[in-house]
Amino acid sequence: MAQLTETLLLFAARSEHVCQVIEPALKRGAWVICDRFTDATYAYQGGGRQVDATQLALLEQWVHPHIHADRTWLFDVPLDVARARLSHARTPDRFESEGAAFFQRTREAYLARARREPERIRIIDGRRSIDDIRVQLQDEIHTLVTATR
Amino acid sequence: MAQLTETLLLFAARSEHVCQVIEPALKRGAWVICDRFTDATYAYQGGGRQVDATQLALLEQWVHPHIHADRTWLFDVPLDVARARLSHARTPDRFESEGAAFFQRTREAYLARARREPERIRIIDGRRSIDDIRVQLQDEIHTLVTATR
Repeated sequence: MAQLTETLLLFAARSEHVCQVIEPALKRGAWVICDRFTDATYAYQGGGRQVDATQLALLEQWVHPHIHADRTWLFDVPLDVARARLSHARTPDRFESEGAAFFQRTREAYLARARREPERIRIIDGRRSIDDIRVQLQDEIHTLVTATR
Repeated sequence: MAQLTETLLLFAARSEHVCQVIEPALKRGAWVICDRFTDATYAYQGGGRQVDATQLALLEQWVHPHIHADRTWLFDVPLDVARARLSHARTPDRFESEGAAFFQRTREAYLARARREPERIRIIDGRRSIDDIRVQLQDEIHTLVTATR
């Protein structure tokens, strides 16, 4: 599949997700939690696939001009840790099957994005225990919810 | 489905079609004939769905910057003729199920596009007999092939 095809399909899926699920949920006052959103697209497609960032910015603006993630949590682990974990998991998907260079570019793009917006994009050290991470997330979500009340 | 979703899916499909089929065919020197290409997208999505033409122009430029149709034949019939023919055909698809206003906008957009580029986009009066139309197409294709030799 061409890289541009993949990017267009991702934004087509996001467009439906926004229209069918996210916008109605926000309208009824719900909080929305997504497993990956457009920050991930800048990392995987922009960094990993090296798709032109101006194309991604335009697609983002077309597909969800009025919606952005208030907070993104990036669960970060070094490549060797990710590899070791994946080897015990399910059959790899089309991204998980990529080589080390792809993951290196994706990770670097994501970390660079997080460094530019340190308040909005929070880096979670994924090598810590699940319990430790849960406590950190609970604290951060509590702070976020309190701040917006 | 949101109009933008449909547009992104169409260009995702076109991207694969261009990469997998059209470009390899052109590279080996073949002539390529498509049943609808991007002129149709300007008519159906631009005219019918009223998607912003600047979005269509950007997607066209991203997906096939170096490929354009040398000749487009628009088989045109009035709406009532199209309706009568469709009623005898298969189950209507998502475009064929649209109402008269959609087809009116699509047809007007396509005819306006043909008037702006009368040499490249040829209007075929679809009310004529199949034999008449075949003769006209054979003549035009012969002229086109001869001109490019």
